[in-house]
Parts: sequence; structure tokens; C-alpha cells
Amino acid sequence: MNKRGFASDNFSGVLPEVLEAINEANQGHVMAYGGDHYTASAIEKFKHLFGENIDVYFAFNGTGANVIGLSVLTQSYNSILCPATAHIQVDECGAPDKFTGCKVIPIDTPNGKLTPELIKPQLHGFGFEHHSQPKVISITQCTELGTVYTPEEVKAICDLAHEHDMYVHMDGARLANAVVSLDVDAKEITTNAGIDVLSFGGTKNGMMLGEAVIFFNPDLSKNAKYIRKQSMQLCSKMRYIGAQFDAMLTNELWLKTARHANAMAKLLKDEVEKIPQVTITQEVQTNGIWALIPKDKIEKLQEEYFFWIWDEHTGEVRWLCSFDTTKEDILGFVDLLKQELA
Amino acid sequence: MNKRGFASDNFSGVLPEVLEAINEANQGHVMAYGGDHYTASAIEKFKHLFGENIDVYFAFNGTGANVIGLSVLTQSYNSILCPATAHIQVDECGAPDKFTGCKVIPIDTPNGKLTPELIKPQLHGFGFEHHSQPKVISITQCTELGTVYTPEEVKAICDLAHEHDMYVHMDGARLANAVVSLDVDAKEITTNAGIDVLSFGGTKNGMMLGEAVIFFNPDLSKNAKYIRKQSMQLCSKMRYIGAQFDAMLTNELWLKTARHANAMAKLLKDEVEKIPQVTITQEVQTNGIWALIPKDKIEKLQEEYFFWIWDEHTGEVRWLCSFDTTKEDILGFVDLLKQELA
Amino acid sequence: MNKRGFASDNFSGVLPEVLEAINEANQGHVMAYGGDHYTASAIEKFKHLFGENIDVYFAFNGTGANVIGLSVLTQSYNSILCPATAHIQVDECGAPDKFTGCKVIPIDTPNGKLTPELIKPQLHGFGFEHHSQPKVISITQCTELGTVYTPEEVKAICDLAHEHDMYVHMDGARLANAVVSLDVDAKEITTNAGIDVLSFGGTKNGMMLGEAVIFFNPDLSKNAKYIRKQSMQLCSKMRYIGAQFDAMLTNELWLKTARHANAMAKLLKDEVEKIPQVTITQEVQTNGIWALIPKDKIEKLQEEYFFWIWDEHTGEVRWLCSFDTTKEDILGFVDLLKQELA
Amino acid sequence: MNKRGFASDNFSGVLPEVLEAINEANQGHVMAYGGDHYTASAIEKFKHLFGENIDVYFAFNGTGANVIGLSVLTQSYNSILCPATAHIQVDECGAPDKFTGCKVIPIDTPNGKLTPELIKPQLHGFGFEHHSQPKVISITQCTELGTVYTPEEVKAICDLAHEHDMYVHMDGARLANAVVSLDVDAKEITTNAGIDVLSFGGTKNGMMLGEAVIFFNPDLSKNAKYIRKQSMQLCSKMRYIGAQFDAMLTNELWLKTARHANAMAKLLKDEVEKIPQVTITQEVQTNGIWALIPKDKIEKLQEEYFFWIWDEHTGEVRWLCSFDTTKEDILGFVDLLKQELA
Repeated sequence: MNKRGFASDNFSGVLPEVLEAINEANQGHVMAYGGDHYTASAIEKFKHLFGENIDVYFAFNGTGANVIGLSVLTQSYNSILCPATAHIQVDECGAPDKFTGCKVIPIDTPNGKLTPELIKPQLHGFGFEHHSQPKVISITQCTELGTVYTPEEVKAICDLAHEHDMYVHMDGARLANAVVSLDVDAKEITTNAGIDVLSFGGTKNGMMLGEAVIFFNPDLSKNAKYIRKQSMQLCSKMRYIGAQFDAMLTNELWLKTARHANAMAKLLKDEVEKIPQVTITQEVQTNGIWALIPKDKIEKLQEEYFFWIWDEHTGEVRWLCSFDTTKEDILGFVDLLKQELA
Repeated sequence: MNKRGFASDNFSGVLPEVLEAINEANQGHVMAYGGDHYTASAIEKFKHLFGENIDVYFAFNGTGANVIGLSVLTQSYNSILCPATAHIQVDECGAPDKFTGCKVIPIDTPNGKLTPELIKPQLHGFGFEHHSQPKVISITQCTELGTVYTPEEVKAICDLAHEHDMYVHMDGARLANAVVSLDVDAKEITTNAGIDVLSFGGTKNGMMLGEAVIFFNPDLSKNAKYIRKQSMQLCSKMRYIGAQFDAMLTNELWLKTARHANAMAKLLKDEVEKIPQVTITQEVQTNGIWALIPKDKIEKLQEEYFFWIWDEHTGEVRWLCSFDTTKEDILGFVDLLKQELA
Repeated sequence: MNKRGFASDNFSGVLPEVLEAINEANQGHVMAYGGDHYTASAIEKFKHLFGENIDVYFAFNGTGANVIGLSVLTQSYNSILCPATAHIQVDECGAPDKFTGCKVIPIDTPNGKLTPELIKPQLHGFGFEHHSQPKVISITQCTELGTVYTPEEVKAICDLAHEHDMYVHMDGARLANAVVSLDVDAKEITTNAGIDVLSFGGTKNGMMLGEAVIFFNPDLSKNAKYIRKQSMQLCSKMRYIGAQFDAMLTNELWLKTARHANAMAKLLKDEVEKIPQVTITQEVQTNGIWALIPKDKIEKLQEEYFFWIWDEHTGEVRWLCSFDTTKEDILGFVDLLKQELA
Repeated sequence: MNKRGFASDNFSGVLPEVLEAINEANQGHVMAYGGDHYTASAIEKFKHLFGENIDVYFAFNGTGANVIGLSVLTQSYNSILCPATAHIQVDECGAPDKFTGCKVIPIDTPNGKLTPELIKPQLHGFGFEHHSQPKVISITQCTELGTVYTPEEVKAICDLAHEHDMYVHMDGARLANAVVSLDVDAKEITTNAGIDVLSFGGTKNGMMLGEAVIFFNPDLSKNAKYIRKQSMQLCSKMRYIGAQFDAMLTNELWLKTARHANAMAKLLKDEVEKIPQVTITQEVQTNGIWALIPKDKIEKLQEEYFFWIWDEHTGEVRWLCSFDTTKEDILGFVDLLKQELA
């Protein structure tokens, strides 16, 4: 047994229901590259969730999903605006920059969330050939700092974008955590709010691997299949991704796991708030906590419950809960914190 | 149960041993992105197979593995020489061209195999800035036509390349089928023959997904990890790829499956040779048969045993055997062939 | 004075009329980046030549012009078909491959000219995501072997392309030489024959530098200005390119110079045909001659009249005439040939 | 005669000495692509200026020169740090991003100048494959806001870069203006201060077109010729760029013109400082003035003396002087300003 910590939701394994679906899909021959009934069934469930008028492409990982979505929306002379903390800016080794050829423009935010006010200063130079033409606003829901956009906040950004003939991409690697946090229908913060393309996360929410790129306007996606293939994201034995998503979308499993992870983070927050040496730095809305703790204690804590330092300069740390985090994990960690920080 | 045909080895599922390894790896938390012991164990087994002095990077799929290898070896002003039938030329939607920025130069061959004589006319213009500088020869083992290079043939190409300060990349999506066909040690047709980088196939040989990029000279690979990440091929829950390779490399499972597939193809060949309306077009050395049959019979045959048409103009077809092809599949198909072609 | 040889039309300098236009344009301040009246005047003359319904973009050099045209017509998952001898395949260090991200597919030809028959085998895989989607046929007029396409030949290729929802790009670095060879209106072999985008050459025909990308369908070019800028081909002091083209298109100067160069090549041909040791290898239709001569004589000849070896293996050489080649140059070279080959 | 304004130094024409050099170079045939004696002579003069141990490549324009330099220094998984006002960030339509494939990271500055303190927060994530690896710091001398780095300031940035195994690129489109402003030898603010690659501007300082990429360490540039060609920046009739640079570097013409332009800006500054409605926003160190004036007066002023608005939001304007700006131009404009702003 490998010890659970608070490093990331991709340190955890695969949900039992998902693994069972993989095992069950392992029968005989089926068409490769997505022509199988497992994939078809999963896509049907996505349509049930988001509406009939969508186009769905599975990808291997989140970086791949983001790159597919952004590539479909852009030409190389465009720019892509995103928060300075965005995964596409910070954590993908420049894959979106290289594959799209676009200029990616980071915008500083206090909490990982863009707003129309933060975006507007970048909306200039339209029609001026010296200037990378702004075309996509990319936001993350929930953000890289665990915060969430309300449906109204998403809509305000989408309206601004559409007024400028631009698109909005949502990186939903942890969309489920936002949905349960807001207690809304998934449509409310995506297609109904005006999102054009969504990266719908699977891996971090308990799948082995697999993300879905969802186009809410199929006109946009008519060439997406070529872009997916050229970006090396087309899985040959697709049934094993299809079967996983099928399981996730059955009986709202994808929301149950997120609800649990969020609840564990809430418990952790409630407990560590009581410890004076811990300063929580971001509103706890989903499955993670960002906090300042005495730097010299970090290493000792990591030995028992591994987690990542978020900011080397300030010593800010991140504790993420997962579908398999238990109340005992939380309480054990809190005890250790109290003991070490005392 | 989904009916088995002869379409491709990626229509088949996952080997039982591999699926079991996946299930067993599903315990607790481990480091993401390859810092887990399943991955470490698999890499150890690769070193046992190919020697200590290698560097191994797992990728999601064959296109990704090829792109990583080729990107590490090239700058965008280089050219990559390959057979006109190469997967990188024909089946990857231009991923190598786009990601490396190189000119990919296809060379016609009678049987999918390059030779020094076929390559030499392209070895000119060195130092001439108008000319994409030749840097990599990419060969496939076994080839896209099921043929195999002998160790001597591989060595002749590698020697030619190295004389010109070039590298040789081997697309080994079906390396196992070549190894058992030649009845050699895997080293004999790779590192010992001078190959610089190998794409070692997993998916087509019975894995769910996963390929390995193996650098036989670690000096070449010092930046490979960045290229893998930027090419969207870094798996977060890497343990599930590591565990699969670990199973494949245990008790020579990877060779057993290939040996079976090759044997099934041999049986099929022996049987269809007796049917006058079938003309086998390529030497049957591995797990596939290329054949000409009356065009008007193809559709009917496909209904019962699905397979792909290789050449729309000539009506040439391809029948591939897999790890799970049975003697009954072969004989059933042969009966149908006889009946339909009579 | 620098001695004239037969190396290339870019070894020659600038036409007196063109140089005079540059000098005259050197007055005061004008808008940069093409907002000047010299550029406007030149574009008007292009419209006079090719029709009102065109869109014209100046570029620095032929590679740049080709890349702009090809980039406008393609997405990175497309392929571009061209003769194996094409400048975009052989002489541009892979700039089109890198900048478009497309697969460039070379097709062997006997004389530098594509035909529908040569093209058709590449027109497959439409809609198949594994296959780079064929989108552009690029032909050169006159070809890299000095041959010309008749209007009917161009039209046949354009019709084939358009039937497949593809475009035709014409590399017209030496378009003038083809126009005078065929004695047709420039429209006949371009827009009237169905060409979508033309690289109209200036440099090799007596300009200092400057090429024009001409879109015969302005719908195609709505984003061309961004692509030109991003491909580093937007000249700030554009008036000096505009003024050159304006001079070239005044009183048909662009055709007079080409007519002279072609006539000089004709004279050279007539003379060397009489020399038994010279074998002309291509039909002489424009300003160049391709010939086989004894290999051991080449170096001595080059010392007095420099020219390039075309094929190192066969010893085939190329002799190009320019706007400033004189009858005396020809006769002097023929005398030397006779003397050396005797 | 086209009226002079204060829009940009690329609205002006060509220096008489430079135009004369072009005219004189127009004799007979010379080797194309830089194998001519005009180019050789210019390169010799660059060596006289910067030292023998340099490697020089001419390019068409500033964007091209920057892209060549940055491409030589980077791999696509690198990042390039620059001021948020940098030409490579703001004015090149994403050419560096697309051609290098790198992430370009803009850093806010008060005056267009980077400092070690501003840079340091970006120097992290080395060796971490998720993070674009910082490799180049690009600074502009003089900056896009007319300010200059002292030799010590350049050296501090270069030292910081080299400590991190990074390089420093200097965009010297207006290097001459910085050199005369500082009254130093050109070496002091480039090679002696640690700069690795310099874009040496020609066009804005009175040439027709042409920039030079200068590598102060020839080890870096061994593949630069291929990158120049692939980036479409290799001029065939290179003699006309060579001859221009040769003229510029004769009798310090390049410094005389910059000295004049700077002096004109100084005169303009001295005069407009007296006008209460004009607020100068940046220190006037070279040939430009940035100022706030009443927004409603701008259009009227532009009609007579054209200039650009720098910031649409604030109404900040830019007035640039050129080699051909006269005292009368300045005084006429100042009179108009006084009259309109009164």
C-alpha cells in the first residue's frame, strides 16, 4: 500500500467503478480509434449532460485536451489571454505556444480568476497587422488556486469575448469540483454561460487517464479530428477511455467523487484554521487549500504526508484532497501539523 | 463478445497479464509523472533487455513516441529520410513534420525496406544552406509491409548514417514481431546494429496503451523530458503504463504474444496459398499478409471478418493477426475465402 | 566591373529603370509598411495586368512569397503537393514545411511539370484523420528546368484541384520568362486558368529585391496581412519595393527583360547544339539551358564564365541567361566551349 | 516632396551616402547570397567595430533579425524573457513565438528597461519538465521608450543570465541612438558587457532595408545560416545590403545620423517643456519623446505633422526624430503645438 498524502489528485489511483469498466471492456475485437460502442455510449452521456448539439473528442491528458481546443480556435497570428497562474501558461512546458504558434499572454490576478476589467486592457490592436490578434480567453474552472467562477462571472467574460469576435476556452481539469462547489448544473457554468470549448477533466477526478474536449458549437470543430491526430492525442484502443468516461457519467459518479474531495478539503480547512501558525491564503471553495506555514517545518511534514510547495519564495504550500482521501488522513495530518507547529 | 477479424492488432484488447498488472497497481498514492516504483521497475527491465546505458521515456502512443525521438535528434532545418510507406509519412497526419519543423523525405521502396542504395541519392547538399540538412534516417522494424530487416541490413544503414553525421531512428511499433521472426536477441537489431533511438511498441502487442522511446546513447536524450512534456506525451498517472511494460517484459511475454501472432499469420499464409484467386504480394515474415483478391468479393468478406483494404487502386488487402487470433479464426476465415472466391 | 557568367539571374544587378525609380522614390517622408503612393501605384498596375478583383502583398524574397501564399491556403494538417524539383521542396531549407506545419509531398516528373496523371495517385485519404489532407498543388511557371506549362495544362491541374476542394499555388519567380515564351497574356496562365495564388517574381527579372503574392480571390486573403507580418516579410520602407514594381510594370519592362533573356538562351542553344560534346537535356523554352558536358571540363569553363553544376552525379550543368546577358557573352562562351571540348 | 512628421524613423527615406553606395554596387555580376565583395567588406567593418571574433548575418528586417538570433539560442521548450514593451512582444505579430516555439514571457517595467530585480522572479523551475526552461533574456537598446541601459546595467543583466546558463539577446534596432547618447564605444554596451547576440539595426538609422545579426561567440552561430534561410531572411542579391552597411560603417556615418536625430529630439524636448499642456513621460535620452497632451488636439496636430498615438487609453503620444529631421521641422511643430494647445 502506497501512503496517501496531499500532493495532487493525480497521485491517487483509479476509482473502483472505473477500473471495473476497463476490465469489462476487455472483450474481443472492436474498431480502433473511437469507432467502438464504449466510446459511443460515453459520448451519448456527454450529450445527456450538456445537450445534443455538442461535439466530443477524447484526448490522453489535460495538456493535450487544452492544445486541441486552443488549436481549433486559433490561427498562429492570434493571441490567447489567460491568468498568469493558468496551467497552459505555467505547467505545460509551452505546448500551447508551440503547437498553436500563438502568443500566450498572461494576466496577473489576485485569485486565479480573470474578470472583464483585467481582460480589457489586452483588447486592442484589432486589425493592426503588427499585433498578435486577440482571439481566445482561456479560463480555468475551478482555478489553479481552487477558486470558482460563478455562472454570472463566466457569462460576463464570454459576453466580452463574443463582442470582440473572440472565443472562450475553459480548462475544466477539475470542473467537477467547481460544479459541486457551486451546486449548479454543469451546463450553467459552461454552454449556458457562453463557453465555446471545454476541456473536461477525467484523470484528476479518478480516471486512469483521459480527458474530453467538448465543442459547444459543432461548426467550430469540423477539423478537430485532424488536429487531435496531428497533436498525437488520438488513442488507438479508444474503448478503454470511452469505458472510463461511461462509468464516470453513470449515476453521477464524476460528481460524487468531487463532492467527497471537496468535503475533505472543507474538513481540513476547518481544522487547520484553528492552528495559529497556519494562514490560509485563498478562499477554500473546492478540493484544495493554499496556506502559509513556517518554512522550516515543511520538509518534516512532507516526509509523512507528501505535498507540494506552491511558491518557493513565500513558502506557500498546497494541500489537495482526492476521491480517496479519508477523514483519518485529514485528522492524522492535522495532528501532525499541530505537533510540528507547536 | 466482439467478433475478431484481421483488421489490425489495435482492434484487439489487452493481454490478461497486462490487465492484471494494471489492477494490481491500483493501490494508494504514488508519485505522479513517473516517480513511482512501477515505472522504475519497468525501466530496469528495459535495461536488462538492452543494456544499462540507455535512457527510457514512456509515451502514450506510437505517433507520440516517434515525434519525441525525431524531435530530440533534429533541428527544424534538418530533413528526415524514410520509406514512402513509413507510418511517420503516411499515418500520423503530419505530426512529425509539424512538431519537428523538418522536411520529411519519402523514398520509394519495393517492400517497405530502405537500403543504402536507396538512401544515397538523398545524401547531398550538406553544408548548403538552401537545402534541408539530412540528419535522420527513420526505418520501421518490422516494416509497414510486414517485412523485416536483418541485423546486417540495419547495420549497413546505421553505418551509412553515422558516416554522414546522421542518426538512425527505428519505429518499432511491432519490434517484437521482427525479433521473433529473426529469432535474434532484441539488441542485435537495435543498439548492436547502431540504432540511435527506438520507438518500442506496446499497444499493438497487447497493451492497453503505452510506448517507450529508448535512447541508446544517453547524451542524446538530455533534453528529452522537456520534449516529451511539450509534445503532450507525459502521463500523470504513469504507474499504469509502467505496470503494463513491467508485465510485458516479465517472462518474455512481449515475445510470446508476437510469436503467436506470427505463427497465426504463417498458418493463414499456408492456407491461402492454396487458393488460386489469392496472390500474396509481400514475403510473410511477421504477423501480416498482403494479398490481391478479386475486388468484388472484398465487401462480403469484410462483413464477417473485418479487415482493411491496403490499396484502393489495386484492391490489395491486409490481414493482420494478433495475440488473440485463434486457429479457429484462421480456419473459419479460410473456409469463407474458399467459399466466396470459388 | 564584375564579369558576367551564366550562374543565375540573381547574379545580375538591377535594371537601370528600376534603379532610377528607387532613386526617385527617395524623397521626404511617407507612411511606412505600404501606406505610401509608390506601393499604391504598383498595386494599381497589377490590377491593370490581372484584373480588379485581386489582392496584392509584397514580400522580400521568393521563399517568403511562397510561404505567405501557402500559409494562407492551408492548415497544419494539410499536405502540399509539388514536383520533386520544386523550389519549395529543394531550395528553401524547409521554410514552407516549418512555417505551414504541413506535409510537403514531392512528385517525380520528367521535366519539372506536374500533370493530372502524376497528381492523382496522391489524391486519396480525404476525410481520413490519419492522413495529411491534400489541400494545395504547387506548380512553378516556368519550371525549375526551364520548361513551361501551356494555359491548357495549367487549367487541367486547377480543375483537378478544385474538384477536390483544393487550391493551386503558382511559384512565378520567373513568370515573365514563361509569359514571353508562350506569347500569351499573363492572365491566360494564371487567373484565367484557375490559379488561386501566385508568387510573382521581381528579383530574378531585374529588381534589387521584392516579390508579390497575388490572390486571385480576395476571400482567400483576408488574413494574409497577419501572415505576412508573422512570416517576417513586411518591409517597413515599402516604397522602395513599390517603386521597383511600378517601374517593372511600366511599358512592359518586366516582359522586355524576360524576352531578352529568353532570346539569349535561344542563341546559346542554337550555338551549342552544333557542338557534339554538348547534349541538351531539357527543351529550351525560357532563359536557361540544361546540358551534359564532359565532367572534366567543367572546372576550367567555370573559371571564365561561372555557372552551376545541376546534378553532381551526372555532371549535368545549367546555364542561365539574364536581362544583361549580351550576344558577346554568348559567343565568347561558345568559343570557349568549342576550344575546351575540342 | 513628401512632408516630414514625427511618426517613425522608418517614415524617412535613405541617406544620400547609402543610396550612392547602392548605385555604385550596381555593376555586373557577383555571387548571390552573400558571396560578394560588398558583403565581405561590410563584415570586415563590423569586425573592426566589434572585434575579430564575431559572426555576422544580414537579414531583411528587424523582426527577421530578432527571430534568427532568438532561434539560434533556443529550443522550443525554452522561455524568452523580455520587457512587456519589447518589440518582440508587442510589434512582431508573434513571429518569435511561432518561429522559435518558445514561451515569450513579458515583464512589466516602468521605463522599458529590465533589471535583475525584475527578472529574478522568473528564474525558477530549472530542470522541472513542466516548466518552459528560461534560456534567453532579450533587452532593447535603446528601449521602445527611448531610454538607454548603461554598460553597467547591461552587464548586470548578462551576469545574471550567464549564472543561470542563459543568454542575452539585444534588440539594437536603434543601437546607434544609444551609443551616441551614452557616448561610449559600441563594444562597451554589447560584447564587453556580455551580450551574446545583437540585432544591429540599419533601416531605422537611414538604410533602405537591412539588419545585421551579430554573434559575439561564433560557437553559438554554427547553424545560423540554416536558420536564416529557413526563416526567409536570406537575400539573394545580398550586395545591396552589404553595400549599404559598408557605407553606414564608413566614417562613422551610422553614429552621425543618430547623433543628429538625438540632437533634434533634445531640441524638441527643450521647446515642448516650455508648453504647460505637454507632459513628458519618459526621460529623453535618444531620438524620441513620449508625452501626454490633450486628447482632443491630437487629430488636428497629426494632419500637419503625422505622429503615432502610443497609448489609446491615456492619450500618450510619441514623437520620433530621424536623420533628416531639421531644426525648421522642430520649430514649425512647436509653433503649431503652442497655437493648438493655447
